[in-house]
Amino acid sequence: MKFPAPVSVEWIASLIEAELVGNKKGFAIGINEIHKVEKGDLVFVDHPKYYKKCIESNADFIIINDSTDIPEGKALLICKEPFDAYLKIVNHFRPFVPAEKSISDSASIHPSAVVMPGVFVGNHVTIGAGSVIHPNVTLYDHVHIGERVVIHSGSVIGSDAFYFNTRKNRTAWYKKMQSCGRVLIEDDVELGAGCTIDRGVTHDTIIGSGTKLDNQVHIGHDTVIGKNCLLAAQVGVAGAVEIKDGAILWGQVGVSKTLTIGENAVVLAQTGVPSSLEGNKTYFGYPAEDAAVKRRELVWVKRIPEIWERLKNVEQLMRK
Amino acid sequence: MKFPAPVSVEWIASLIEAELVGNKKGFAIGINEIHKVEKGDLVFVDHPKYYKKCIESNADFIIINDSTDIPEGKALLICKEPFDAYLKIVNHFRPFVPAEKSISDSASIHPSAVVMPGVFVGNHVTIGAGSVIHPNVTLYDHVHIGERVVIHSGSVIGSDAFYFNTRKNRTAWYKKMQSCGRVLIEDDVELGAGCTIDRGVTHDTIIGSGTKLDNQVHIGHDTVIGKNCLLAAQVGVAGAVEIKDGAILWGQVGVSKTLTIGENAVVLAQTGVPSSLEGNKTYFGYPAEDAAVKRRELVWVKRIPEIWERLKNVEQLMRK
Amino acid sequence: MKFPAPVSVEWIASLIEAELVGNKKGFAIGINEIHKVEKGDLVFVDHPKYYKKCIESNADFIIINDSTDIPEGKALLICKEPFDAYLKIVNHFRPFVPAEKSISDSASIHPSAVVMPGVFVGNHVTIGAGSVIHPNVTLYDHVHIGERVVIHSGSVIGSDAFYFNTRKNRTAWYKKMQSCGRVLIEDDVELGAGCTIDRGVTHDTIIGSGTKLDNQVHIGHDTVIGKNCLLAAQVGVAGAVEIKDGAILWGQVGVSKTLTIGENAVVLAQTGVPSSLEGNKTYFGYPAEDAAVKRRELVWVKRIPEIWERLKNVEQLMRK
Repeated sequence: MKFPAPVSVEWIASLIEAELVGNKKGFAIGINEIHKVEKGDLVFVDHPKYYKKCIESNADFIIINDSTDIPEGKALLICKEPFDAYLKIVNHFRPFVPAEKSISDSASIHPSAVVMPGVFVGNHVTIGAGSVIHPNVTLYDHVHIGERVVIHSGSVIGSDAFYFNTRKNRTAWYKKMQSCGRVLIEDDVELGAGCTIDRGVTHDTIIGSGTKLDNQVHIGHDTVIGKNCLLAAQVGVAGAVEIKDGAILWGQVGVSKTLTIGENAVVLAQTGVPSSLEGNKTYFGYPAEDAAVKRRELVWVKRIPEIWERLKNVEQLMRK
Repeated sequence: MKFPAPVSVEWIASLIEAELVGNKKGFAIGINEIHKVEKGDLVFVDHPKYYKKCIESNADFIIINDSTDIPEGKALLICKEPFDAYLKIVNHFRPFVPAEKSISDSASIHPSAVVMPGVFVGNHVTIGAGSVIHPNVTLYDHVHIGERVVIHSGSVIGSDAFYFNTRKNRTAWYKKMQSCGRVLIEDDVELGAGCTIDRGVTHDTIIGSGTKLDNQVHIGHDTVIGKNCLLAAQVGVAGAVEIKDGAILWGQVGVSKTLTIGENAVVLAQTGVPSSLEGNKTYFGYPAEDAAVKRRELVWVKRIPEIWERLKNVEQLMRK
Repeated sequence: MKFPAPVSVEWIASLIEAELVGNKKGFAIGINEIHKVEKGDLVFVDHPKYYKKCIESNADFIIINDSTDIPEGKALLICKEPFDAYLKIVNHFRPFVPAEKSISDSASIHPSAVVMPGVFVGNHVTIGAGSVIHPNVTLYDHVHIGERVVIHSGSVIGSDAFYFNTRKNRTAWYKKMQSCGRVLIEDDVELGAGCTIDRGVTHDTIIGSGTKLDNQVHIGHDTVIGKNCLLAAQVGVAGAVEIKDGAILWGQVGVSKTLTIGENAVVLAQTGVPSSLEGNKTYFGYPAEDAAVKRRELVWVKRIPEIWERLKNVEQLMRK
């Protein structure tokens, strides 16, 4: 997320009760995670293994749990719990304000868009020209809908990520990682009924232009789907996945987190995808394999009884 | 779909800017796809491979992209894009009129039916005696609910089909096949929470009397489910499937499109059904097989290490 | 369920037109199924195989379809259809009263809880301090939500069980087993968008404190989930399952009915669980097995072509 205006890093250090080391006069323009961080941003790190990567990233301001070297112009904000500090900053700048009415006054809906009865439109939502939002859809805060988008009933866009850190030594077992990103639905997308799309935790969840989702599809936080993809009914995609342009996922496919599915890949029904897949191929099975290879494997399994019989014959012959 | 009254085929030719060849004086009573077409209907075809089938079907008026022979009494409507013409006709006769209120004035609800708060009831919906529609259900236009039907919260009936034609040479990658059919829910059906049932594209989607669906079941367009079937939670059925009376599908089963599941078939949990299944049998696995055969296969797979060992012994003995 | 006040067993016998044998002067305090029944309750049994178990249970009043011995102080209520009698009693004491408004007057919502637009809150629902119910959620009658609970949009809590008895000799093929239990959501639970949780048929469905559900999770009737569990997106759990504290179920896992998953068990994505699993282990595949064993099996299957080749060689050598 970006801040409404640049914020003095000294002020942020005092907000999170951190010791400020290095360039104390800087201004932060936003806060993000290590993979998405841009120049002027804050980032956080709580394990020495990742110190170097964070300090050498685009981030200028590093919330960290120990002192370490820092290049000229950057600053460390040293505190005991960088993750809690991160949450505190996010909550300060994007507090949860429950909407009083079904359509927030801060939403911006194009006059040619149709919003049907029972739709909830949260704060700062935008809906583009010619889009149709069918009854009983929910659009959480900061969801952006492009032009000529169709969203069918019961779908939920912008719900929180399923992202919890385990803290077994605390009162609370799980610590929720707050969702600070948005959902962007680009032009000419169609979403079926009963879909759920979580917003990003640190980046945005994006559905690329021309992509079509069938009913009951689930898309996790920070996932980016390319242009002109097809996702059939009951597909589930975990968080921080990248699906490239033109990929097709058939019914009930499951995709694990933080992986990439290549351009024009086709994933057949009920396939489970535990790791990245190259584009321009067809996949099937669990774990997902080249469909031709997997089909041959099914034939091989059918031959086990024959192998058993022939082996028995060989053994009997040898015993003679 | 049927037209409200017979329409002159000359008028239709001018609407879609087609050249009219053959019987120019006919009247069309409706429009449908090749598998459902009845006498007096329009049909469309855009590939020479299917010309003959369409011309010899019940349809009297064929929207087509080239000239060909035509029997006495029938007519060709020749135009460059028969599919676009089809959409134009459908949109002319069934335009999308967004409802202004949660319950459309054109809906017909029996006085003994219960419609709970937050339910959306679209244009021309009917709800029969003794039915209960729980909160936050969505009934799109032209959905028909029989008597003593129960629909649990969050379910969506009548959403558009997931049916897109690929047109990679155009501005838009995918062309949506418009849903012109209805959903018919017959008497004594119960639908769980969070179900989604798409309406037909050219025919109707039908849930037969006495059939019960658990939560989060998805039913595709034009699918016809018989009487007294059971579909457990998270089952997904694609488009244009036929499920015969008394069939049982257990949890998370996936059914591919345009196939038939026979009477009283039982499909065990998580099974994937890629092709038609005979009735009165029990199935399991991917691809669905006779459950007894599949269970034996699982036992065979467990014996591979033993086969491996015994083969090694044989090889050693032979080397001596 | 418990009755609002003790009810004379004579009055109940007349309600269900049963013959009363044994202690005719008793008072019943509630009605329950054999596994949950407490002292003073009614229970029903309609098969001689279970007569003994019911009569020796905590229940004092047994609705039964034949005469049999009965201990001092207990009573039999003999009628032709004990199950119908059970339904009649339940309906008498907890009739379905459709709510007139979105938030029932009998609901009790803590002032610090946030209930967003489009939420339905049924009769006798309670919502604890600091809980947030997002837009378009449905809470059926008798749902109890603890403190600091978050429920995301489109979720449905308290829908009826998918529980039908087959009665093929009757007019109606299926007889619905009415849901008389409640749903209890304990403190610090978070439920994702589009989840569905059925209420209990005879007991309560319970989500233990600190447990987190991702989007589109389905939980069946009478299922009890322990504390600090994680259930990822599109998991489906059937009825009367017990999931112990700290268990983790990854995406699209399916769990069959009336089984137990042990403490801290981890069930990997898309796994199918047909029978109980011990705690503190990791499982995978269908049917669920120890993940290490299952992974080795996948390797063994890949070796079948090699086995085939080596066996062929052995056979050729022997033929010489």
